[in-house]
Amino acid sequence: MRIARFSIDGNVAFGAVEGDPTVPDGLVLDIIKGIPFAEFELSGTKVPLSKVRLLPPVLPNKVVAIGRNYAEHAAELGNEVPTVPVAFFKPSTSVVGSGDPIVYPSFSNEVHHEAELAVVISRLCREVPRERVKDVILGYTCANDVTARDAQRAEGQWARAKGFDSACPLGPWIETDLDPSDLAITATVNGELRQAGRTSQMVRSIEDLIVHITEAMTLLPGDVILTGTPAGVGPLNVGDEVAVSIEGIGTLTNKVIKRG
Amino acid sequence: MRIARFSIDGNVAFGAVEGDPTVPDGLVLDIIKGIPFAEFELSGTKVPLSKVRLLPPVLPNKVVAIGRNYAEHAAELGNEVPTVPVAFFKPSTSVVGSGDPIVYPSFSNEVHHEAELAVVISRLCREVPRERVKDVILGYTCANDVTARDAQRAEGQWARAKGFDSACPLGPWIETDLDPSDLAITATVNGELRQAGRTSQMVRSIEDLIVHITEAMTLLPGDVILTGTPAGVGPLNVGDEVAVSIEGIGTLTNKVIKRG
Repeated sequence: MRIARFSIDGNVAFGAVEGDPTVPDGLVLDIIKGIPFAEFELSGTKVPLSKVRLLPPVLPNKVVAIGRNYAEHAAELGNEVPTVPVAFFKPSTSVVGSGDPIVYPSFSNEVHHEAELAVVISRLCREVPRERVKDVILGYTCANDVTARDAQRAEGQWARAKGFDSACPLGPWIETDLDPSDLAITATVNGELRQAGRTSQMVRSIEDLIVHITEAMTLLPGDVILTGTPAGVGPLNVGDEVAVSIEGIGTLTNKVIKRG
Repeated sequence: MRIARFSIDGNVAFGAVEGDPTVPDGLVLDIIKGIPFAEFELSGTKVPLSKVRLLPPVLPNKVVAIGRNYAEHAAELGNEVPTVPVAFFKPSTSVVGSGDPIVYPSFSNEVHHEAELAVVISRLCREVPRERVKDVILGYTCANDVTARDAQRAEGQWARAKGFDSACPLGPWIETDLDPSDLAITATVNGELRQAGRTSQMVRSIEDLIVHITEAMTLLPGDVILTGTPAGVGPLNVGDEVAVSIEGIGTLTNKVIKRG
């Protein structure tokens, strides 16, 4: 199932994405009764996807992201593959949805895209054993770990470089039925291919990452894990449209705008 | 005014701390109608402080902390004073209150205390000009930026080292009427003095820090800024009681326990 979060007439709702994407206005949202983190039913009330504004598919309490989890990407920035996963946070205030702008931050002159597979957590969990990891995952979505590369180099810790407002586009929806182990992942800028990799190239698997993170901290329903970016990161400029696509999920598209 | 957050008979409330601390059971909480982030009134209904369980005085959406903001502390760990503030996040899941345990994490053998002045944000804000910083501050509380020093060294980014469950004690309450510019700040372990400094020793002022942080990101009501720790950090062991005291605020006390 594909679960989208959207606003319609000022209300926020979740809906299951159904229909035919090849037909104009062919996709509809079957509105969910309740929330996708508990038992829920489809209401049968359907609205055309073209008539709503998509929101980030979850509003995470926290986003835990992993750096340097694809060997070729670590190398392209002159870094070794780390001996332990490099974990950092992106705050909830950095999350935006597909179609929302990425606002170029005032403190940077070098903002990069980083296409990533995002894992959405379904339930409160801590010290998750490897064989139970699949039980705490609601599904998967696309992420862009937008990074002010100059601030990342200058500031040591990455709170501003990777945590500024709009630095965490997520979407367009959560795919719940997916084997994430070998999916094509790409980023394009203005239609031109910049990043292309496969999730099978991750240095550490989703199981490894969730065991590692939950050894230290509780994850809450709706928390998001970003799993690292393949090679090909590069600059975004005002006016660019960046699209992250993952096989079996869909495309997350955001335009870069100047701060108004 | 001192604003505490507490639970009584299963309900959570805010209250103004009143009374005489020198008399047994002399402190009472005048229950607040509404929340302290908006206009509120005191109800006149009072409960003895000894009859309630204090909670963290706020449940922040995010905690933004600053590393190496006291020169002597930077030096004691072999670090330079950074040319730009070192900002990092502690997640909401790491926050506990005064009297709550610090649970020794399984992935560390070297957990340190770091006594810090915490600033509680009153309102949604972004790009706060220096002269408006005081308008976005609700008040001040004590914090312990508990750190797994071995993981901090090993992992590069500090999400696990400073973000594990119970790594962010805050409390005992928020003092709203306080000049924070030159306050004594101490940490004791089992009654023995370990850290002693003054907030006037900060490399960068609270104004500098809030300008720097909000240049990048929106702060929300209840968000917390940790302002760095003075020299004297050192190990905590299971069974220790650590107390952070700040002049004009009070004392935040936590016992270190083994994970059960």
